[in-house]
Amino acid sequence: MNAGPRPVRAARGTELTARSWATEAPLRMLQNNLDPEVAERPDDLVVYGGTGKAVRDWNCFDAIIRELRNLAEDETLLVQSGKPVGVLRTHEWAPRVLIANSNLVGDWATWPEFRKLESQGLTMYGQMTAGSWIYIGTQGILQGTYETFAAVAQKRFGGTLAGTLTVTAGLGGMGGAQPLAVTMNEGVALVVEVDRERAQRRVETRYLDEIADDLDDAISRVLSAKADRRALSVGVIGNAAEVLPELLRRGVAVDVVTDQTSAHDPLAYLPKGVTVEEWADYAAAKPEEFTTRARESMAEHVAAMVGFQDAGAEVFDYGNSIRGEAQLGGYERAFDFPGFVPAYIRPLFCEGKGPFRWAALSGDPEDIAKTDRAILELFPENAQLARWIKMAGERVAFQGLPSRICWLGYGERHLAGLKFNEMVASGELSAPIVIGRDHLDCGSVASPYRETEAMADGSDAIADWPLLNALINTASGATWVSLHHGGGVGIGRSIHAGQVTVADGTELAAKKLERVLTNDPAMGVLRHVDAGYDRASSVATAHSLPIPTAQS
Amino acid sequence: MNAGPRPVRAARGTELTARSWATEAPLRMLQNNLDPEVAERPDDLVVYGGTGKAVRDWNCFDAIIRELRNLAEDETLLVQSGKPVGVLRTHEWAPRVLIANSNLVGDWATWPEFRKLESQGLTMYGQMTAGSWIYIGTQGILQGTYETFAAVAQKRFGGTLAGTLTVTAGLGGMGGAQPLAVTMNEGVALVVEVDRERAQRRVETRYLDEIADDLDDAISRVLSAKADRRALSVGVIGNAAEVLPELLRRGVAVDVVTDQTSAHDPLAYLPKGVTVEEWADYAAAKPEEFTTRARESMAEHVAAMVGFQDAGAEVFDYGNSIRGEAQLGGYERAFDFPGFVPAYIRPLFCEGKGPFRWAALSGDPEDIAKTDRAILELFPENAQLARWIKMAGERVAFQGLPSRICWLGYGERHLAGLKFNEMVASGELSAPIVIGRDHLDCGSVASPYRETEAMADGSDAIADWPLLNALINTASGATWVSLHHGGGVGIGRSIHAGQVTVADGTELAAKKLERVLTNDPAMGVLRHVDAGYDRASSVATAHSLPIPTAQS
Ligand SMILES: NC(=O)c1ccc[n+]([C@@H]2O[C@H](COP(=O)([O-])OP(=O)(O)OC[C@H]3O[C@@H](n4cnc5c(N)ncnc54)[C@H](O)[C@@H]3O)[C@@H](O)[C@H]2O)c1
Ligand SMILES: NC(=O)c1ccc[n+]([C@@H]2O[C@H](COP(=O)([O-])OP(=O)(O)OC[C@H]3O[C@@H](n4cnc5c(N)ncnc54)[C@H](O)[C@@H]3O)[C@@H](O)[C@H]2O)c1
Repeated sequence: MNAGPRPVRAARGTELTARSWATEAPLRMLQNNLDPEVAERPDDLVVYGGTGKAVRDWNCFDAIIRELRNLAEDETLLVQSGKPVGVLRTHEWAPRVLIANSNLVGDWATWPEFRKLESQGLTMYGQMTAGSWIYIGTQGILQGTYETFAAVAQKRFGGTLAGTLTVTAGLGGMGGAQPLAVTMNEGVALVVEVDRERAQRRVETRYLDEIADDLDDAISRVLSAKADRRALSVGVIGNAAEVLPELLRRGVAVDVVTDQTSAHDPLAYLPKGVTVEEWADYAAAKPEEFTTRARESMAEHVAAMVGFQDAGAEVFDYGNSIRGEAQLGGYERAFDFPGFVPAYIRPLFCEGKGPFRWAALSGDPEDIAKTDRAILELFPENAQLARWIKMAGERVAFQGLPSRICWLGYGERHLAGLKFNEMVASGELSAPIVIGRDHLDCGSVASPYRETEAMADGSDAIADWPLLNALINTASGATWVSLHHGGGVGIGRSIHAGQVTVADGTELAAKKLERVLTNDPAMGVLRHVDAGYDRASSVATAHSLPIPTAQS
Repeated sequence: MNAGPRPVRAARGTELTARSWATEAPLRMLQNNLDPEVAERPDDLVVYGGTGKAVRDWNCFDAIIRELRNLAEDETLLVQSGKPVGVLRTHEWAPRVLIANSNLVGDWATWPEFRKLESQGLTMYGQMTAGSWIYIGTQGILQGTYETFAAVAQKRFGGTLAGTLTVTAGLGGMGGAQPLAVTMNEGVALVVEVDRERAQRRVETRYLDEIADDLDDAISRVLSAKADRRALSVGVIGNAAEVLPELLRRGVAVDVVTDQTSAHDPLAYLPKGVTVEEWADYAAAKPEEFTTRARESMAEHVAAMVGFQDAGAEVFDYGNSIRGEAQLGGYERAFDFPGFVPAYIRPLFCEGKGPFRWAALSGDPEDIAKTDRAILELFPENAQLARWIKMAGERVAFQGLPSRICWLGYGERHLAGLKFNEMVASGELSAPIVIGRDHLDCGSVASPYRETEAMADGSDAIADWPLLNALINTASGATWVSLHHGGGVGIGRSIHAGQVTVADGTELAAKKLERVLTNDPAMGVLRHVDAGYDRASSVATAHSLPIPTAQS
């Protein structure tokens, strides 16, 4: 039996390879996470986000597939950091898979300890949707990034980025969404990336318009597009720790600055003076020295970002911990600019809004086109949603199983879930749909440098909420539930949970979807009510969501 | 409405104050945790273990009781660090209460950060069974302590402590079990306690035989009992950091040394030179200074323990982090003696054994007497269990609702659960029974200084297991499930989970009990199989418990 790397692709169509859709679904979604069209480094089982893996190793991959094929409708598979460790008898309302990834006891929650345990084969880095089998390619982040830039446009530039220049770095699995998100908002983007292959890949998948020959060329291209108010994205090959200070020195008129290199993991950020070819060996051979140099470079990188802010640009951290790492690298003003959540996203979280997503297990793009139309019909009054769905249908290239993402809130998600389930039942869709979300959601994360940065009541570091989120999803009928540590911001910095529920057209699925897609976003509303956000309290009141301590 | 301290006592008998036994049970058990007979400081809502609380504040207590009275059989109450934060619609197999207590994101998992958040009213310390409503008084720890001393006797003294002297400290909620556990093993115990009231309380509840007038008196009493091979426990009022070095200096012939002061929380350990009267104000006014002094005293205390070990005594840490704190206090040899789990308990964990416990909601001691007899009948071949059950029946004074504890393993617990459920159904027992356990169990904890110290594969700090434990119990039909941080070893040092399931005599309860009481201890077997313990692998094989990665 082949236990090593091989190309993986999920089955398509309606023929089951497992005993039910509830087990076929996680099986296909795990395979889909490792599809070469989807994963950044499939041979290493790395899906996205630096070292975010789907399973611990290829033996574990084979064992999980084998167990899922055999799993009965009252059994549950347990996965510990990408390794299947048990199959236990539960019941038909229970999840078919329960996953805990990368979790460490607090005093041991450091990168060196994690790497030691990882090298001993005892854990893996699950990121958010890598180890929880609901990554859907760059589209997953595209919508959130699009909404974030739309909020920037709203706040500073009269609702459009037309005639503005955004500078950022990183064209990886997530970061690659940035250029398209900027051009969708009619702006101009200049994106710095050290690795030419990564940049090339974004051009191929239509996320990036073009790659410049050098920095001078890049600057002249973006400035002329900016002058013409013409949407354009340009990649430039270089190290952000060198290019951003240089842009600042030259006084280029930059309007918006952010970053999406893999700064959360210092071994995944290339220090100045190191080549892409030397990277892997150097990081493996001397992790401590590499970390120090990466943090020093991040300090210079972030200092340039603060420089742009001083010069009047809109600057924000896009959730990769670069401020924290730059601070460790000795730069004191690192936290002078805010994270994107308090700056733009928290009001949405108060409404239970977050990155709702779904994938067609049929593999048929037409199924997604039909669900797109269903969403437009379900929420006709939501113009922003309609604009996104139409644009996504036209401009997003699918990777792996066809899928869609859009932000929906409390009181909305379950309507979409029930509708999709009906469409499966009636045969309008050719196979079941899986419905999940990113861990980055309104009520599923504790992450003081990102999702819970600067909470109104100071509860940033309280980690009870993601645990309650995982427990309530497990208790509500989700098909698989995951609980991770680290994610996008790194070891020691976050705890977060995910859920995926299958719409297989049955009545039981309808009941489960109704509960999960009500309770899961309800956690976002409850968490923000508890923190004192008025918007969340009004949402709770409007939907008669009871608040126990408000009744006395 | 009275929102302040008041005496709390659970209802007895069969009349429901809530809508079903599944909600009446957590309601009575929460009240029972705060019964003045049970809790150490009920007015402050502190149940045991330093500052282990049942609920955040009295308003939260009232709100939880109100919600439990109204909760339907398909609803779930969410509790975030002792505060009720939501009621969501789930289903009849789902837990009625889900609890997450004291959890913090890793980089913020420190005592100062915890105390800051606690003082802002955002969290509380849940300990293990305090915030999860299944503390049953000192008996809870008695059996574990009895078994531990039995293991010591087995290892070093031919199976009995007769003719040996054990020195320890701390006569609090848990520590108070030590003198009785030693005399049950036929030995002599000298227990140091700073607070005369605490010592007095143990005499009243028959856990401690007598209190000496001073150290000289204490020494002469225990040495004469030791010479006569007569079981005896003597308390002495004093500070362990002074008394232990003094005993060592005098060359008293001590055979066994351990400790159960509240060392895990440096504000709950009294430094030398501070009086009990000054304690609370001083710790509140100058927590940092107090912490430094407490750690310095612990360093002297542990240095004496190591001194006894050097002199040939059996010395072990009994799970209160005193070694870690002494190390922080500057004593380098603190980890020279082992924790009790690797020393005596791990082989039991490999069999899925752990502190199984139950309480009679009727309040009728006769119900427990009947379950005692049922246990003896169910496991006639287990002589050690029989010895414990008989001794407990004779010598343990109930606190609050009558209850019993005994260690049962994988393949045993569900038999007891099903039997009790039948006895409720047939009317043999006068009301339902709740069945739970301590968080300190075979497969529910990650705690590198205690339950997972020195794991064979080095996986001490991997925290996926307690999370999977909470998720699988939630997915198996437990009535309430809890996920805590800190517990007996303190902030930053552990993650652990608990479950309680109600035997109300229904068929549904039988199904739930069968699954929960199989899957919960199965986690212990699976965790130790994964870590490479042969004993665990044989248990899995003997019971046909599948190991996914063993099949290829
Ligand atoms: N804001 C969000 O919602 C969100 C969501 C997911 C992930 N993230 C975070 O965003 C970051 C990027 O994620 P990803 O999936 O794209 O990671 P990735 O590892 O796939 O890509 C990172 C890219 O950065 C490039 N890079 C590294 N060092 C560089 C340097 N010095 N200069 C220029 N380029 C450099 C790498 O070559 C790579 O292409 C991660 O930290 C991730 O955790 C944020
Ligand atoms: N091994 C286990 O299974 C286990 C289980 C539960 C708790 N614990 C741990 O055991 C410890 C004790 O728990 P507890 O519930 O009895 O706590 P507690 O706070 O009720 O009692 C601690 C006692 O220690 C006394 N004390 C404090 N400083 C002292 C000193 N310098 N000298 C002498 N006495 C001193 C206090 O007066 C108090 O009576 C805690 O750290 C707890 O976390 C261990």
